[in-house]
Amino acid sequence: MYTFEELSKLFIEKFEVDHFPASPKTLYDPNRYFLQLGGKRIRPVLCVMGNDLFDVINPDTWPVAKAIELFHNFTLIHDDIMDNAPLRRGMQTVHEKYGQSTALLAGDVMLVKAYDYLNAISRDYSKNIIALFNKTARQVCEGQQLDMDFEKKQEVGFEEYLNMINLKTSVLLAASLQLGAILGGASERNQQLIYEFGRKLGLAFQVQDDYLDAFGDPDKFGKQVGGDIKANKKTFLLIHALEAASADQKTALNELLHSDGDNKVEQVLAIFKACKVDQWAASLKEQFMNEAFTHLEDIAVVAKRKEPLKQLANYLVEREH
Amino acid sequence: MYTFEELSKLFIEKFEVDHFPASPKTLYDPNRYFLQLGGKRIRPVLCVMGNDLFDVINPDTWPVAKAIELFHNFTLIHDDIMDNAPLRRGMQTVHEKYGQSTALLAGDVMLVKAYDYLNAISRDYSKNIIALFNKTARQVCEGQQLDMDFEKKQEVGFEEYLNMINLKTSVLLAASLQLGAILGGASERNQQLIYEFGRKLGLAFQVQDDYLDAFGDPDKFGKQVGGDIKANKKTFLLIHALEAASADQKTALNELLHSDGDNKVEQVLAIFKACKVDQWAASLKEQFMNEAFTHLEDIAVVAKRKEPLKQLANYLVEREH
Repeated sequence: MYTFEELSKLFIEKFEVDHFPASPKTLYDPNRYFLQLGGKRIRPVLCVMGNDLFDVINPDTWPVAKAIELFHNFTLIHDDIMDNAPLRRGMQTVHEKYGQSTALLAGDVMLVKAYDYLNAISRDYSKNIIALFNKTARQVCEGQQLDMDFEKKQEVGFEEYLNMINLKTSVLLAASLQLGAILGGASERNQQLIYEFGRKLGLAFQVQDDYLDAFGDPDKFGKQVGGDIKANKKTFLLIHALEAASADQKTALNELLHSDGDNKVEQVLAIFKACKVDQWAASLKEQFMNEAFTHLEDIAVVAKRKEPLKQLANYLVEREH
Repeated sequence: MYTFEELSKLFIEKFEVDHFPASPKTLYDPNRYFLQLGGKRIRPVLCVMGNDLFDVINPDTWPVAKAIELFHNFTLIHDDIMDNAPLRRGMQTVHEKYGQSTALLAGDVMLVKAYDYLNAISRDYSKNIIALFNKTARQVCEGQQLDMDFEKKQEVGFEEYLNMINLKTSVLLAASLQLGAILGGASERNQQLIYEFGRKLGLAFQVQDDYLDAFGDPDKFGKQVGGDIKANKKTFLLIHALEAASADQKTALNELLHSDGDNKVEQVLAIFKACKVDQWAASLKEQFMNEAFTHLEDIAVVAKRKEPLKQLANYLVEREH
């Protein structure tokens, strides 16, 4: 049994190989560049933890974890094109550095490489693994499309926003854990529980993320507070505020969304506070966390084996940065 | 044993299902739109023919053929973005009709669906099938990247151009046949022979394509002759002309490539003819066809079973439109 930190170290070691052929460099160097930008590698490590929860680490878990991380990076490269984002982890995005067409192709070939790793595992469970991987990949694309659709929509309800976040963010965390659980020989029921644990953890994480962007301590947060508000980004907070606001508050909020004034952030935050959006977000997060932990408790393995996942979950959602 | 036309009819029937979930329509309607634009479905039918050459049709050949056609359409959607192409088969491209971000995402999800079909086949050969599919997918991406690299290069040699066309066009035809052969229980040697047959056929096809664009009969060709010349597209003809031309002809040709005059096509064609590019292309095509047919003859099955492939090959490469 290992902690997140221990497995993270092990995974990063194994992931630091060259995943791509030497040439053409014009296609593969962009992928090498992007992967060396790093990242917390949370999803692949969740996969290994999902295995470790049930049994000693199955050697096939490593290629599956690699496939998950490559898939995640593929989505980042393509999302950056769609969002026209100049920076990722403080460095140039692939399309910014190498051009859009190459970024598109480099992403494509990164996804193909993920399937190469999946094709390396034992036939005993490869069908289940690939089926869950594909379902999740499709859902992540659906989440990204809904996110883009919402940008053009005036009103987005809480339930449809929740569904979008679930697809765009949560299901990959959930599936990473379940893929590991399959490799650890978990029963169908235990697989579902770990999946739901991951899904609810993902939702709590996103609420936290939205909360910190608005109400975080600027010294601890590390980036400018209010970025989502400035960008008129739909978040848990804004969507709830529009639903909870009085008619006057709603008018004021909608006016602010169409303005670009100097104290826009302060004014939006004042309405958020008046609508008690901060308290609501804190309790929504707690609700998702409680649900996540209930699923974790229901899993039929001794409590001690669950400790690393509990610690990680608390770390991810209690963080202030 | 079936002809190309018979298998084409069978495949199109089986392919006319809804490959995608009902919602979100904003993501999946673009894919439905693109697939109903049609196409000759040559690659998936080659896959079924590769099976039919060796044995009765394995039911698993149909999902593999579907995966090949979805993969091909995924590459077309993404290539159209990269080429900024407004039309495909006379209709709006996906990015033109639905926007670039959606086209990117729709292509991604189409590739994922291809892997769903591959995951449906028997474990007995799924590893070999997916390995060849992945290798080919990677090569097609490499070919597209090289093609883009060549656009920016002043001089491209015959060998590097041949390598690019091989990757971008030929290997998918070759692999389609080999995937069918694997499903038909062909030996390793017979698999390699059918692969090489397809590869050489693809090269002959591309030479023919380039030839018709320059020297085709406008009445039979169906589209304007000289399109490649107008677009300064690197083709077998141009690359050979630049290698075979005298110093004066080369200077004239390079000047024409940088001009946009009314009779550019006529002048370039005159240099092509002076350099005997037309004869050279005809003999290059014949060479590739001869090599293709030699590989086909070497396959250890009775001659009668090879007839449909021979007929198709002649049809593809003798066509004047």
